[in-house]
Amino acid sequence: MTGLVTFGETMLRLSPPRGQRLSRVDGFDVHVGGAESNVAVAAANLGVDSAWCSALPDTALGERVVHALRGEGVEPLVTWTDTGRVGTYYLERGGRPRGQTVVYDRGETPVRELAPDDLPLARVRDADRCFVSGITPALSDQLAETTARLLETAADAGVATALDVNYRSKLWTTDAARETLTGLFPHVDALFVAERDARSVLDCEGDAEAVAAGLADDYGFETVVVTRGEAGALAVHDAVHEQAAFETDTVDPVGSGDAFVGGYLAHRLDGGTVPDALAYGAATAALKRTMEGDMARVIPDEVAALVADGEDGGIDR
Amino acid sequence: MTGLVTFGETMLRLSPPRGQRLSRVDGFDVHVGGAESNVAVAAANLGVDSAWCSALPDTALGERVVHALRGEGVEPLVTWTDTGRVGTYYLERGGRPRGQTVVYDRGETPVRELAPDDLPLARVRDADRCFVSGITPALSDQLAETTARLLETAADAGVATALDVNYRSKLWTTDAARETLTGLFPHVDALFVAERDARSVLDCEGDAEAVAAGLADDYGFETVVVTRGEAGALAVHDAVHEQAAFETDTVDPVGSGDAFVGGYLAHRLDGGTVPDALAYGAATAALKRTMEGDMARVIPDEVAALVADGEDGGIDR
Amino acid sequence: MTGLVTFGETMLRLSPPRGQRLSRVDGFDVHVGGAESNVAVAAANLGVDSAWCSALPDTALGERVVHALRGEGVEPLVTWTDTGRVGTYYLERGGRPRGQTVVYDRGETPVRELAPDDLPLARVRDADRCFVSGITPALSDQLAETTARLLETAADAGVATALDVNYRSKLWTTDAARETLTGLFPHVDALFVAERDARSVLDCEGDAEAVAAGLADDYGFETVVVTRGEAGALAVHDAVHEQAAFETDTVDPVGSGDAFVGGYLAHRLDGGTVPDALAYGAATAALKRTMEGDMARVIPDEVAALVADGEDGGIDR
Amino acid sequence: MTGLVTFGETMLRLSPPRGQRLSRVDGFDVHVGGAESNVAVAAANLGVDSAWCSALPDTALGERVVHALRGEGVEPLVTWTDTGRVGTYYLERGGRPRGQTVVYDRGETPVRELAPDDLPLARVRDADRCFVSGITPALSDQLAETTARLLETAADAGVATALDVNYRSKLWTTDAARETLTGLFPHVDALFVAERDARSVLDCEGDAEAVAAGLADDYGFETVVVTRGEAGALAVHDAVHEQAAFETDTVDPVGSGDAFVGGYLAHRLDGGTVPDALAYGAATAALKRTMEGDMARVIPDEVAALVADGEDGGIDR
Amino acid sequence: MTGLVTFGETMLRLSPPRGQRLSRVDGFDVHVGGAESNVAVAAANLGVDSAWCSALPDTALGERVVHALRGEGVEPLVTWTDTGRVGTYYLERGGRPRGQTVVYDRGETPVRELAPDDLPLARVRDADRCFVSGITPALSDQLAETTARLLETAADAGVATALDVNYRSKLWTTDAARETLTGLFPHVDALFVAERDARSVLDCEGDAEAVAAGLADDYGFETVVVTRGEAGALAVHDAVHEQAAFETDTVDPVGSGDAFVGGYLAHRLDGGTVPDALAYGAATAALKRTMEGDMARVIPDEVAALVADGEDGGIDR
Amino acid sequence: MTGLVTFGETMLRLSPPRGQRLSRVDGFDVHVGGAESNVAVAAANLGVDSAWCSALPDTALGERVVHALRGEGVEPLVTWTDTGRVGTYYLERGGRPRGQTVVYDRGETPVRELAPDDLPLARVRDADRCFVSGITPALSDQLAETTARLLETAADAGVATALDVNYRSKLWTTDAARETLTGLFPHVDALFVAERDARSVLDCEGDAEAVAAGLADDYGFETVVVTRGEAGALAVHDAVHEQAAFETDTVDPVGSGDAFVGGYLAHRLDGGTVPDALAYGAATAALKRTMEGDMARVIPDEVAALVADGEDGGIDR
Repeated sequence: MTGLVTFGETMLRLSPPRGQRLSRVDGFDVHVGGAESNVAVAAANLGVDSAWCSALPDTALGERVVHALRGEGVEPLVTWTDTGRVGTYYLERGGRPRGQTVVYDRGETPVRELAPDDLPLARVRDADRCFVSGITPALSDQLAETTARLLETAADAGVATALDVNYRSKLWTTDAARETLTGLFPHVDALFVAERDARSVLDCEGDAEAVAAGLADDYGFETVVVTRGEAGALAVHDAVHEQAAFETDTVDPVGSGDAFVGGYLAHRLDGGTVPDALAYGAATAALKRTMEGDMARVIPDEVAALVADGEDGGIDR
Repeated sequence: MTGLVTFGETMLRLSPPRGQRLSRVDGFDVHVGGAESNVAVAAANLGVDSAWCSALPDTALGERVVHALRGEGVEPLVTWTDTGRVGTYYLERGGRPRGQTVVYDRGETPVRELAPDDLPLARVRDADRCFVSGITPALSDQLAETTARLLETAADAGVATALDVNYRSKLWTTDAARETLTGLFPHVDALFVAERDARSVLDCEGDAEAVAAGLADDYGFETVVVTRGEAGALAVHDAVHEQAAFETDTVDPVGSGDAFVGGYLAHRLDGGTVPDALAYGAATAALKRTMEGDMARVIPDEVAALVADGEDGGIDR
Repeated sequence: MTGLVTFGETMLRLSPPRGQRLSRVDGFDVHVGGAESNVAVAAANLGVDSAWCSALPDTALGERVVHALRGEGVEPLVTWTDTGRVGTYYLERGGRPRGQTVVYDRGETPVRELAPDDLPLARVRDADRCFVSGITPALSDQLAETTARLLETAADAGVATALDVNYRSKLWTTDAARETLTGLFPHVDALFVAERDARSVLDCEGDAEAVAAGLADDYGFETVVVTRGEAGALAVHDAVHEQAAFETDTVDPVGSGDAFVGGYLAHRLDGGTVPDALAYGAATAALKRTMEGDMARVIPDEVAALVADGEDGGIDR
Repeated sequence: MTGLVTFGETMLRLSPPRGQRLSRVDGFDVHVGGAESNVAVAAANLGVDSAWCSALPDTALGERVVHALRGEGVEPLVTWTDTGRVGTYYLERGGRPRGQTVVYDRGETPVRELAPDDLPLARVRDADRCFVSGITPALSDQLAETTARLLETAADAGVATALDVNYRSKLWTTDAARETLTGLFPHVDALFVAERDARSVLDCEGDAEAVAAGLADDYGFETVVVTRGEAGALAVHDAVHEQAAFETDTVDPVGSGDAFVGGYLAHRLDGGTVPDALAYGAATAALKRTMEGDMARVIPDEVAALVADGEDGGIDR
Repeated sequence: MTGLVTFGETMLRLSPPRGQRLSRVDGFDVHVGGAESNVAVAAANLGVDSAWCSALPDTALGERVVHALRGEGVEPLVTWTDTGRVGTYYLERGGRPRGQTVVYDRGETPVRELAPDDLPLARVRDADRCFVSGITPALSDQLAETTARLLETAADAGVATALDVNYRSKLWTTDAARETLTGLFPHVDALFVAERDARSVLDCEGDAEAVAAGLADDYGFETVVVTRGEAGALAVHDAVHEQAAFETDTVDPVGSGDAFVGGYLAHRLDGGTVPDALAYGAATAALKRTMEGDMARVIPDEVAALVADGEDGGIDR
Repeated sequence: MTGLVTFGETMLRLSPPRGQRLSRVDGFDVHVGGAESNVAVAAANLGVDSAWCSALPDTALGERVVHALRGEGVEPLVTWTDTGRVGTYYLERGGRPRGQTVVYDRGETPVRELAPDDLPLARVRDADRCFVSGITPALSDQLAETTARLLETAADAGVATALDVNYRSKLWTTDAARETLTGLFPHVDALFVAERDARSVLDCEGDAEAVAAGLADDYGFETVVVTRGEAGALAVHDAVHEQAAFETDTVDPVGSGDAFVGGYLAHRLDGGTVPDALAYGAATAALKRTMEGDMARVIPDEVAALVADGEDGGIDR
């Protein structure tokens, strides 16, 4: 039985060395990333039997993506296609006063064509938890429909479902996102949403607690987790639970939100409480920020130690 | 006045280090290449005032292409667009028993939409020579039409024109290529064609001399240059001229055909004879093979010395 | 059901850049290699469901080994230990007139302690083929015994078994190797042996065919494959089958023998004949030599094409 | 017509990786830098038609310098010589408690011999703005004279002139600098000076405003800009204008002063007011600090956005 | 005559690039480090004639260690062995919230077998100062005995002796350390101890001054230096002397404690007072933190300038 | 007592990665090389107590040179100066049809000013062998005189002397070289000369044996070694001795001539015969070609094995 099944697009990430601009780039580091595979990777590294569904062209670059996920212990459930390309995104690392610049080149990817029947729904029904981010339904009308069917199938089979809003302004408008995502909410048990997205996409008001409570009330979620960057996270699940963020010396912030979700879900799947899972999420996200690439290659013991003892930073010898 | 104007698509080339597979790639070297810009670069490095026409999206990656060409002394005549992407191609370097593997990812590039009126035709009319490869008309029906108008415009203005057949089986069939290219031939003064392409695309028969003579007769070219890889090249221009290839320790073969054309055209524009231009072409191509990247960053003196003295390989101190 | 199960030690390989000596080394490339995991990797890349049994310390470096194999699609069946270290070997690449220099640092590795009952024997009994090299029994008396029990268990369960002699003079004497290995032979169906090892370890005489035939006769092997480096390979299996080696531009020769075995076994498991399997082995080995690292990251289509068409070396575009 | 013409020496900059000392260096990153070409590069990237005058030996290294500037869109107006060398400077990056260490190796460079008649004075007369730093006249007596003639020629032709004091203690004494530079002041419209240099070289006293006002009064400058590092900049131009510095995560501070001047001049040439130009200068300098190398490879939109909105630091997607 | 002789184990340090985990490592930077050789290197770079005693296997990796120390001007006094291996340690660089992770792989090293008579005791007797850290006696019972004999020999010959407690929990318990180290104290003139180790290993109580004074009283040390990380250091030598730590932009903290000792001892050997030597120690340690690797490749002038003027951080040109 | 003392200039060598041109270089590998220090390095690696005399500026780059030689076990006998620079040379690696390109930047180096009294003549008198190449007297008139005095001093003290003609056309004419070098010959015991230099500089005629015999006769050398590249070497010393060159897979040919001399001299100093020393020279030169950099970091055992057994090229495990 699979602990966690996720569904979404995964891309090659091409980033120049720090301090080099895309407009002058001489070399790219290659990483593999996508919200849903990132969540699966974090969970797999924390001991959860994880799988990721998607489509890829049957090329060396498609194989590159699968190679990365297999290496992390995530089972790839891939529909291989003869056409289409592997999506890429270019990441120029910055620092104040400019931030990270992301240039997406994700057109013509085969995942956009996946219909519900293309998914391994038997595997989904057999899982403990099913996760998808708001990016997947944003990619095409087909995927909006497929995502809805996926969540419905899982919910009908008694599989706990989770959705991370993860709004991307380069993919759709806030209006389109609201319409599509709220249509998915009836099949979602746990909602993750950045406070900023809750306001701009879901029209929430009030402080973070009010946002979480309002969403839980309005849509009947079992759990709502509002993430607030350096201000930590807050969950409404029966009661209100707050979690501070850990201070980090950040090497690469990309993927830390996905690491949070992966750490949270892994601990929940392992039987942990919501407040403990929030701590696992925060710790996994913090550790992710010290690593290059989108993936949280964490070790269960170090996450547990960070949760237990707080930050370190010294030399252990 | 511009010596040479070329027109075509230029891409980012992404290649893993030698010995690393695309399916496992951790890092890419970034080069900039395209048949027509490669020809312009070779000519510019040999002292010809060169320009390259194309379209690019107005992004950091579009700027990356222009930066590379400006750095080589080629004037970019670019139509900047708000949509589309920069084409890329992935090059896995091999060695016997596998060769170089090229994976094109050149969809949705803005050059495909360029109409004749988008081109700087005044600059074309004011040039000494206009060059295009058979790749350009293969990219879209629009470009087939635009290429025809470009060559016609140049020819009408008395600008010498050159075409390199450069057949790409991943872009079109031999039948489609033959139909389109032979439609361009009436406006072409000098034709470059690999012996293999002459047979498969243009249905030529006989030995290389027969091929060249036949093409010259059939289509009325002033010059036909048949390239034959390690077997050298042969031209029919009034008389028949043969040129051996130089032996090389090859670091990177990509772009050596373009370097041949660039070296040939540069020497012709400098007033050289056809046989001397063949030697310049062969020398430029040989030197290109000792350099990473698609571009022939040659020095006029070293090309001249190689033409005069043949190969060296020692240490000059 | 698993297609292929292998059993042995896998190490980190640390190699300086070409042209740099170990005695002056500033940086190491890290690869993962071991004869039995290399065989499993080649087979897995050719589509065989492959697993590898071993023991590793439960450290970041042990995880490094497992990460590499998982990434190649090999299932690691690992006994994790609290003590011991990950073996390493240092490879200084040379060229004439010095060769590759290998410095082993493989002491105190936990695989040496593995008893038969530590192995997943149920998985072995359920496999199609079981493979081990002569390195495994050379590592410790315990492993000599465990290897014997492994092969016996497989044979008793009707699983086809294969052994590659792979003599390592740094691990044992030819006398010790002969005594131990011949004790394993009764449980072995297919023997792979370098012609040189056949002479020095197994006291064979005559030409390669005589060697193979003699071994088949003396020990009752179903198949004997004698490998001869650039001279190709020869098998006795009912009849005599010869296979030439492909010419290669070698980037890294390490692991090509294992690639041969993996390619051979994969094609046999896929239902191929012995002569065809020899061709697959030779092609897989040749392709391996064009890649950095011990692993044959081949693509089934390119191996099949090489078998069908022989070497290429051009650019496919 | 050229927007900006600058005149000075440009060198190769050789820097070890961060954390490596020059006394143990194994590899150098190569950049190209010089105060006047840096100013031209910043302006060119901001859309100004820019040129740079200098002399270089006709070698591969001289070509390296020209290649870099052409790539940035700066027109090199170079006197090529048969003798002399390309200046180099070695930069060891530090961090507290040691700073950046610069070792100049700029002897025997041909720019030192340039007489006024060697300069393309017609191009200078035809420009909108002429810029030189105090480094140029420090390099040789000949250059002190040539610089004077250059500024005089520009001023006589109605070209606005600018000078950045840029005192280098390794090139001359404060007394020598004062004598030479004040001799140039009558032909200078806009003076840039670090507050520290104003005190040590130009004997200014009082706070930054007093310094600027005093210089404007004493020498009749139209504009005096006093730069104060992290404390920002202050200009006296009719009125007093203050500009804060942006906070930065600095990757490479070298060249940020030149970026300030380039950003300022570009915005003035674009018709901006002095206070707006100060903001452009500060923004260009801040962005430069996030990039490796001496050159401010900025994008007009990002500079404008930084001026408008202040610092960011997030991820834009 | 030798100024400083040290005795201990030196290893290869293998560290992935920052941001990469050991469990996913693709490449290692190679450095050479060991507490006692680090001290010798710092002292040698500050002008002290320094030697280091140890044992190494006669392999390319043993030669690698010696090469590094010779290059720093330290004389290696090495017993070469036919067996054993070079110790390695793996360093994963972290940042908050995880620290540096050190994985030792130092088993089977020949230094563990060194008996007193294997040491060049005549050279020790002829030195000005003899230094050892608490790591050396922790490595084996033999080394505990050899270290005792070394210090006794030095003390008997009137050579000043120094010991840095340098407790390593991965090598021994605090009880074992206390018993062995206090047995060495009668032959030690100057003791260096981290405040944390003084409490956990030596059962000291009270503030740093009380710790230092108590140790001096209890064991009769001429000098006790208590190091306190960012809080600086405190010495009791006749009087009490305090020294603040310098603020640093840390590139690599490993080895800064050894650099402190080396800087202190070098200045004492040069005739400096204890408070001045503390300042030299703090400055050497601070500079070390700005360099990659375990070694303090400092320049005497920069240490003196830092002691005299405090931190800088600007650009000197 | 020192076995070998050499005297000459040593430079930093800056080379781009293979396939990159100096005119486009982005990064340099840094090596340290000079004919006389290369000879000392080869000899030191073969066990000879070696020293090298020169002058260097007291800068980080001067220290870089000394660091490299100390690391190889060569004792630097350096006159440190307050002025001048470290010479550099730029090496662009090529392959057919272009060779290696060397750009020297060796002006203003302090070694040019060294007078005989600046040399450690007592050390020279105390050595077994004194070596200098023809480059040293070519650098300045002062050095021509100093070299003469050095050789005379050595010869008068009974120290065996050796000179390698090593003609550099970029430093002097053949006429100037002949005049100066023949003036040194009376103090030289062993002459090394490339056959090509013997003809162009020393006006020799006939085959290699005639050249060697003629030089021995004309100038009374005890030994004349004529080197002939791939054709090997020939010595006249009492009798005529011929030595073939080993076949190599060349990584870097620079410095192989110096390695030949160093290997020869080391074996002679070790008591070997002239024919054996020729074999050691050829083996050391061949091994050098498999390493990056100017220095022959050979191991005595591998040189001896190559001399004994001839080339290998396999994997030793």
